[in-house]
Amino acid sequence: MKIYETATAPNPRRVRMFLAEKGLLDQVEFIQVDIAKGENLTPEFVAMNPMKKVPVAVLDDGTSLAETMAICRYVEEAHPETPKLLGDSPKQKALIEQWLRWIDFYLMTPVGMCFQHTSGYFKDRMNCFPDYGQDCYGAAEKFLDFLNDHLKNNTYLLGDEFTAVDINAFATIAFARVVKLRIKDEQTHLQAWFDRINQRASAKV
Amino acid sequence: MKIYETATAPNPRRVRMFLAEKGLLDQVEFIQVDIAKGENLTPEFVAMNPMKKVPVAVLDDGTSLAETMAICRYVEEAHPETPKLLGDSPKQKALIEQWLRWIDFYLMTPVGMCFQHTSGYFKDRMNCFPDYGQDCYGAAEKFLDFLNDHLKNNTYLLGDEFTAVDINAFATIAFARVVKLRIKDEQTHLQAWFDRINQRASAKV
Repeated sequence: MKIYETATAPNPRRVRMFLAEKGLLDQVEFIQVDIAKGENLTPEFVAMNPMKKVPVAVLDDGTSLAETMAICRYVEEAHPETPKLLGDSPKQKALIEQWLRWIDFYLMTPVGMCFQHTSGYFKDRMNCFPDYGQDCYGAAEKFLDFLNDHLKNNTYLLGDEFTAVDINAFATIAFARVVKLRIKDEQTHLQAWFDRINQRASAKV
Repeated sequence: MKIYETATAPNPRRVRMFLAEKGLLDQVEFIQVDIAKGENLTPEFVAMNPMKKVPVAVLDDGTSLAETMAICRYVEEAHPETPKLLGDSPKQKALIEQWLRWIDFYLMTPVGMCFQHTSGYFKDRMNCFPDYGQDCYGAAEKFLDFLNDHLKNNTYLLGDEFTAVDINAFATIAFARVVKLRIKDEQTHLQAWFDRINQRASAKV
């Protein structure tokens, strides 16, 4: 498998951490795409992913696969011998899916929208609404309070079990520094969890 | 299983269609929640779903499960004897996940944001940015062109196989009428696909 990615972007980091936790990182060839220079807008890239986003995996049979969680799903299903990060029983798989959606919709999306609409990083290729971006900052800030409360009685976001939800929340919070959103001093449970994930070998990749 | 839902809202419709395609609709008790009156904001509802959204499933062991796709995932995994709507092989599961994300991020989210930011339906409980909402309309409109092109050579969104992706795209496009986004006369492939899905028994539930 090859993965086209941008090493500094948060979604590719989620995939690298997922692969590292599976012990499969060295089986993948990574190819860097400079999104600031628009290398994701070329006809060759758009043929792989019409949505023009990184990461994109190319499977050994040549199939292109876009979307972070689709790539993680493929890796989980194709390697049942590795640690399960998307759950085992129907109920656990569903609760993980619920949390993955919560992290996407209530943390990653608002942080990403805040970045895109207030930084001007992609202003050559989108309309920016800074007031909306600022409102998204508030939404993400509020969600961190929810996470902090939840982690008062949980080691990981799904309780005792480390899952892809921890990876996604961790990578998003780490990325949120670009919009100056950080864990607050009083959010001690969230900070302890963040430090716990940050000590894993997968957090370094 | 019980499902708390709002019959007129698009996400509950996705779950009902999913259950109908599985032949499991009559095994579920549905309880209506009036979101216009704020019945989703009560302490009892928030205890089931801190994100205050419908639908929410309550499993037979009392576990609350929020998020449309988490409920669908539970149903798929708990009933392996029913038609598979989320794929079978690792590759098919991953391609379906890719498409589910595309429908969520590039169609359902912009249509929903357009509705929320331009209609004022939830103006008592959110900040509205109408210019951003209008921009989202344009994004959703563009994605319908992409779907139309894709359907030129495909019966369903994943080719020959009806999947949850068709359910989600169909329910979203049907809902998009609230923001006056409709399939255009020249989008003949998209219209033919829409009519094909609309003829299924599950489209009536």
